[in-house]
Amino acid sequence: MITDFQNWAKSRQVCIETSLQTLLPAANVAPERLHKAMRYAVLGGGKRVRPLLAFAAGELSEANEGRVTIAAAAVELIHAYSLVHDDLPCMDDDVLRRGKPTCHVEYDEPTALLVGDSLQSLAFQLLTEYRLADTAQVQLEMIKQLAQAAGSRGMAGGQAIDLANVGKILSLPELEFMHIHKTGALIRAAVMLGARCGSSLNDAQLENLDHFAKHIGLAFQVVDDVLDAEATTAILGKTAGKDAEHNKPTYVTILGVSRARELAEELRRDAYQALEGFDSAAKRLRQVTDFIIQREF
Amino acid sequence: MITDFQNWAKSRQVCIETSLQTLLPAANVAPERLHKAMRYAVLGGGKRVRPLLAFAAGELSEANEGRVTIAAAAVELIHAYSLVHDDLPCMDDDVLRRGKPTCHVEYDEPTALLVGDSLQSLAFQLLTEYRLADTAQVQLEMIKQLAQAAGSRGMAGGQAIDLANVGKILSLPELEFMHIHKTGALIRAAVMLGARCGSSLNDAQLENLDHFAKHIGLAFQVVDDVLDAEATTAILGKTAGKDAEHNKPTYVTILGVSRARELAEELRRDAYQALEGFDSAAKRLRQVTDFIIQREF
Repeated sequence: MITDFQNWAKSRQVCIETSLQTLLPAANVAPERLHKAMRYAVLGGGKRVRPLLAFAAGELSEANEGRVTIAAAAVELIHAYSLVHDDLPCMDDDVLRRGKPTCHVEYDEPTALLVGDSLQSLAFQLLTEYRLADTAQVQLEMIKQLAQAAGSRGMAGGQAIDLANVGKILSLPELEFMHIHKTGALIRAAVMLGARCGSSLNDAQLENLDHFAKHIGLAFQVVDDVLDAEATTAILGKTAGKDAEHNKPTYVTILGVSRARELAEELRRDAYQALEGFDSAAKRLRQVTDFIIQREF
Repeated sequence: MITDFQNWAKSRQVCIETSLQTLLPAANVAPERLHKAMRYAVLGGGKRVRPLLAFAAGELSEANEGRVTIAAAAVELIHAYSLVHDDLPCMDDDVLRRGKPTCHVEYDEPTALLVGDSLQSLAFQLLTEYRLADTAQVQLEMIKQLAQAAGSRGMAGGQAIDLANVGKILSLPELEFMHIHKTGALIRAAVMLGARCGSSLNDAQLENLDHFAKHIGLAFQVVDDVLDAEATTAILGKTAGKDAEHNKPTYVTILGVSRARELAEELRRDAYQALEGFDSAAKRLRQVTDFIIQREF
């Protein structure tokens, strides 16, 4: 049986896919090979978790869905660029992503480097090309939030911490610090950018939403680590077991699978708690939370 | 004898260096190694041609110098990121830049990749953190212009065209198309962002300024090619003769040195002509033009 949530999620995934198809430069525009590779890296794959969070937060703030679509696309482009660069030989050296050869395998390394660079530029460009908030000032703040989330004190910084930690034994707080940056920052940006497309939330409510986003960001990573340890490459669509192979500290190596699963449940409760002040308008956010915890790939 | 222009340029170079020192994350902020490497890649080197152009355009539009400094820093960060990524082994594989080991040689490849990624994010972040134009809407347009200039239809696209052209014989228009993207787009952005920090120019004047920027962008590249062919590594502070070594088409390979020098002079005349409608307020732009044509490194 297809649930109401599955219908909603499917329609939003179709919406973001269609929009990304339109927003990315066409494959027949010069430089063609670069544009083809950008489309290859972004389209036709992924769970689109960050867009789903943006759409759910946008419903909470009564945002125009067209605006949320652009904000969600920008966040997804940053995510896609980070995957392309992470997969490069000098980083994780991975050959499989979303069930397909990684970008540098399908094209070549220099192209993959430029794909990542160009996707990042495009994300910021998108946030300037459409009216996304009630004032241009709020829109500037949205761009600022995405830039901070992507940069050296956000996602890219988390990558650097990750690199520095290979082969090390980390404490739980150290691991958390890494993931708050590496995956948490962009997930937070997805929630907050989605919400700021609307204007029905006051500052206190935005703060609660930010707490929610922090918990869900960590929960996402805990589940990711469990799946990497337990699932197969075929189910994940990316190389399974590579954390252990790369000698990377994860929630599973520190806590074991069963305690890691418990931690994910605790984080779900914390996330729900942060939404307590919201009524049924937060329904989708609660559903996306469940989806993130219960997913099997 | 030190000229009035040399004094002006020196003071602006000091100003941009000091500002970049402050605007870049401190080396003792986590992740320390990444932040150290970002500072290494940006500080203490370079002619700062793009900032000089931004300052000169800012004088023309009677812009607040503090605003122009931020805009100039953002453009310079994009330039610095592009150099770090261009020097990577999978691209030009260069070991020397601004008289020092390149970023991936001094640090390592993954760090250099993240340095470039983070510098790009920081550039956009800067453009949101300060009031840079009379309205937030104009500021959004400035961000848009920088994003377009950096992306797949600007600088990164030019890099892709460059890669595709290695070993090929190009026509002059094809070479021009490449450089309009590879170096021209960001030089244009430097001029236009500097100008838009002020508000004394009307649309027609901004268009003339854009024409100026296109000519000066090409002139810069023609001179670069001549210098690469003629100067020594010691003078350039980067590996000389690498265009020929990499079998890259340049203005010198297509035209020869003497005709390339003539072309630079023609482009200088075109640039001056685009400024004809401006009075002495364009003095600095004319001087930076001369500096770009006459430079020896």
